[in-house]
Amino acid sequence: MTALKFDFANCFSAAIGEKGLDEKNLAALREEIVAAVRHCNDTRGEGMTGWYELPYETEQVEKILNSAAAKKGKFDDVVVLGIGGSALGTIALRTALVHPFHNMLPNDKRGGLPRLHVLDNIDPDQLAAFFADVIDFSRTLFIVISKSGSTAETMSQFLLAVELIENKLGKDKIKDHLIAITDKAKGVLRPIADDWGLESYVIDDGVGGRFSVLSPVGLLPAALCGMDIEALLAGAAEMDEICKTEDFMKNPAALFAAIHFLADRDKNARLSVMMPYASGLKDVADWYCQLWAESLGKAVHDDGTPAFVGSTPVKALGATDQHSQVQMYTEGPFDKVTVFVGVEKFEKTLTIPSRFGTVDALAYLNGRTFNELMDAERVGTELALCEAHRMNMTITLPEVNANTVGQLFFMLEVATAIAGKLYKIDAFNQPGVEGGKIAAYAQMGRKGYEAKAKEIAARPAKNAKFLL
Amino acid sequence: MTALKFDFANCFSAAIGEKGLDEKNLAALREEIVAAVRHCNDTRGEGMTGWYELPYETEQVEKILNSAAAKKGKFDDVVVLGIGGSALGTIALRTALVHPFHNMLPNDKRGGLPRLHVLDNIDPDQLAAFFADVIDFSRTLFIVISKSGSTAETMSQFLLAVELIENKLGKDKIKDHLIAITDKAKGVLRPIADDWGLESYVIDDGVGGRFSVLSPVGLLPAALCGMDIEALLAGAAEMDEICKTEDFMKNPAALFAAIHFLADRDKNARLSVMMPYASGLKDVADWYCQLWAESLGKAVHDDGTPAFVGSTPVKALGATDQHSQVQMYTEGPFDKVTVFVGVEKFEKTLTIPSRFGTVDALAYLNGRTFNELMDAERVGTELALCEAHRMNMTITLPEVNANTVGQLFFMLEVATAIAGKLYKIDAFNQPGVEGGKIAAYAQMGRKGYEAKAKEIAARPAKNAKFLL
Repeated sequence: MTALKFDFANCFSAAIGEKGLDEKNLAALREEIVAAVRHCNDTRGEGMTGWYELPYETEQVEKILNSAAAKKGKFDDVVVLGIGGSALGTIALRTALVHPFHNMLPNDKRGGLPRLHVLDNIDPDQLAAFFADVIDFSRTLFIVISKSGSTAETMSQFLLAVELIENKLGKDKIKDHLIAITDKAKGVLRPIADDWGLESYVIDDGVGGRFSVLSPVGLLPAALCGMDIEALLAGAAEMDEICKTEDFMKNPAALFAAIHFLADRDKNARLSVMMPYASGLKDVADWYCQLWAESLGKAVHDDGTPAFVGSTPVKALGATDQHSQVQMYTEGPFDKVTVFVGVEKFEKTLTIPSRFGTVDALAYLNGRTFNELMDAERVGTELALCEAHRMNMTITLPEVNANTVGQLFFMLEVATAIAGKLYKIDAFNQPGVEGGKIAAYAQMGRKGYEAKAKEIAARPAKNAKFLL
Repeated sequence: MTALKFDFANCFSAAIGEKGLDEKNLAALREEIVAAVRHCNDTRGEGMTGWYELPYETEQVEKILNSAAAKKGKFDDVVVLGIGGSALGTIALRTALVHPFHNMLPNDKRGGLPRLHVLDNIDPDQLAAFFADVIDFSRTLFIVISKSGSTAETMSQFLLAVELIENKLGKDKIKDHLIAITDKAKGVLRPIADDWGLESYVIDDGVGGRFSVLSPVGLLPAALCGMDIEALLAGAAEMDEICKTEDFMKNPAALFAAIHFLADRDKNARLSVMMPYASGLKDVADWYCQLWAESLGKAVHDDGTPAFVGSTPVKALGATDQHSQVQMYTEGPFDKVTVFVGVEKFEKTLTIPSRFGTVDALAYLNGRTFNELMDAERVGTELALCEAHRMNMTITLPEVNANTVGQLFFMLEVATAIAGKLYKIDAFNQPGVEGGKIAAYAQMGRKGYEAKAKEIAARPAKNAKFLL
């Protein structure tokens, strides 16, 4: 494999002037950074850091590969029922690693591979349309993913899918068309899976949703659609080695975390914009948005004191969003760190045909390639941000493939863990998601939430002058 | 039509405590707000505010409807070559107003309507795959959209598409498969369109890319795919009336703008999160991100003094992103205004089947609907944000249709114009996009950019210690 490259130079004042970080402050943070890396190394695999070991779970991988091989040619559609961490990794893998228009191709053009759908919402119009018009149940495999089995959105979809499979194919066919990925023992879905004799996979205790892409959650759908999950894990393992080093100036995850932390602390820059220059990486940015936001947006520090910290991730896509967001990035407030993700080599080289040789606004394109143009746009935007004194960094993938995407996932996961230590918060919980869930349960009449329902009903009326 | 509803109450301290805006500060801003609304009214249609008149351009609409009628049944695919403002409005319309899986349906299931593709990037792998595997040129209509005809990304695609049409169908067929939307006289594309006898449409001088969705840029692709563009414009016209009122407490656009301005000025909250609870509105949020970011992110005030202002838009989707972003929104920094977009009535009512009546974590879902669940999730998240003292507002559409989407577009456009006046910046230029373009031209060897190319080549080397 070829390792990813990292360029952090444009975050510092030497490159972009006083709006950049002071190198001395990075040096002064040395002890904290080293302590954070060491903590991550020393506790790896413990508590909610089970994801550290996912690149090495060969037994699980073998089971997945066998299953995928056995199912080859039997399904036209794989449908993931899952939300958040059960969905975003698979979407990122699909966008990066299969044909860019995979789901739009007819069966005979996909080389025997099924389409891959991720139903990550509960929109009734979208769901009704999907089940009525998109799939043929007799050729469809559903994968329901929920660690607890109590995620309202996923379980509602599950109830609907089961009903439809039973109605269309018969009760005895459910187990041929449904796989469960859930906790090994706890929760609601495990006993159902066991009772019904479903093929099932385990999400380890120490693997939270947003750190689950390299578990069966991401690996099973990927393998079913022909992605090279062994290369994905090999990339992650290789990056794991790199990100262990306590010599933090050689550790990309540590620098990524430390720079974001300092940008926030020293420069009040609390936005992390991820902007890949490759359509295939668009949804890696989306996956990163969950990872970074849900891990670092926390109200309390480890010692219980108020925090209300976190840098908010924003996804963008080059070159597309140069025509949408870059105006804000170059001229708006100095509140962002932009993370470019470049690609050295695309699979195809595509030439821009030569025409209009005498038209000045077009002649320079003649005979050049889209590859060159993409590269010029990325570098051009980097230069423009530097001229505008904006912090930016670049991660470069030699190419977009399973190995490099595995590297990128793992680097960002370790960076998130290290950033959590620098912010002195728990990067692995998500207490802030509970409030909305509880209020939703109360409105839906779930048992045990009667008090909350009363509280909601008894809310004072809103100020009418603000209701239009 | 039924008008959109607006609920701004949760932005104020009476609802969410001291982290909310002080009503007195809104009252104190009265003169500036009224002046901004009056300015917008008095200068409407002038300069770069030609978009104000788009709902009333009946002549153009008739031409578009005639064209769409004449082309009915002749094409399986419509392909937009455009980027930024030439792409985002059409994508938003597609996601909102056709079948949720329109582009995945086979020809016989789309009621004679073509698929709609928007090629808004220059990724060589994506483009090569698209042209090789997705479309049949003999059944494909291309629409090239660029006001100046010099947008590098769009014109590269144009050169490629023309070459391929010519190779596959013959030179004489180009005009049957290519429509141009561009300036009426200026630029590179207009003479080509005229020379070749292409069907073409005009982007008015006063209509910038991000304000062009109600011009032929958005209307033509929409009409070709069966969307009701007359209802879209009628909705916009109705909202135009509402947003003219100088009684700003009755003007949703004025309140939207003023609240965002005050959130920034008084509370240091410079993020505007748009979070629709309807999958169909997902890309309206994306369209808004361009509108808001590119209009308000500005380095200089009207009087030439430094500004570096703007609130950065972020897109999210309910309920999906409750499992991704809401942790950050409830527990992270107090730096956001969240704009929920709710829908009163979905087209379909979809019941959650009853099963597992004795399982506590599922029983409450029995026989309820996905519609109820979606609503409970939206209200639950609103309540959770309020409890966490976070500013939020809700825009409610009676349903998602062409009329309501037209209203929403127009309200947000007027709000952007008013916000520009409050920030005392030019909301209609985009000087910050030039830097990257120039650097890209220089690298591509465009004539006239030799000095920049030299400058780029002569850059000092990066600090090697930050290159990993």
